[in-house]
Amino acid sequence: MSACFPVKLPEPPYYAVIFPSVRTNEDETGYSAMAEAMVERAARQPGFLGIESVRDPQGHGITVSYWTDEESIRAWKNDTAHSEARKHGRETWYADFALRVAKVERAYGL
Amino acid sequence: MSACFPVKLPEPPYYAVIFPSVRTNEDETGYSAMAEAMVERAARQPGFLGIESVRDPQGHGITVSYWTDEESIRAWKNDTAHSEARKHGRETWYADFALRVAKVERAYGL
Repeated sequence: MSACFPVKLPEPPYYAVIFPSVRTNEDETGYSAMAEAMVERAARQPGFLGIESVRDPQGHGITVSYWTDEESIRAWKNDTAHSEARKHGRETWYADFALRVAKVERAYGL
Repeated sequence: MSACFPVKLPEPPYYAVIFPSVRTNEDETGYSAMAEAMVERAARQPGFLGIESVRDPQGHGITVSYWTDEESIRAWKNDTAHSEARKHGRETWYADFALRVAKVERAYGL
């Protein structure tokens, strides 16, 4: 996986999963470890193209992951370790979040 | 405009403009004033649905704005004040950025 920010991606079309979230103050150590593990695991999935993730000191974060197609997003959603991580997220780490699946139609750079 | 994070949006479909950026170290005062003015101005445009914006202490930011349709995005791109702000952005404020226009097809919450 590329560590570039913004991440380098192929020409559209491809898919984006937009994930804005608000952290609780709970379990920073456990959260950080799991977040890092999930990025590494996502990067090994078929159809993964890249990820961009930012969190500010107030705990507001936006993560956008990019995928070749909807089937890859569905498979990642059904991944067992990822599902377990999401369960912890809902119960402990996130005060709020949204998840939006979008088809990228056009893209530009600087 | 709603100050909620994540922002409250209608049911899909709608459009998202995903804007990851890296700030230079130049002109924090001018940048902050312009960023705030542009969010306020965007919120008054036809078709604007909401915006989420996060920047981390390293200067990596992700802003996602949401719009009812592509025509609204095109009109905002052609707005004179916005075009002027983008020019300053390319010349001074941003070391790098990408802009991705995507159609949101599905959305979930906590």
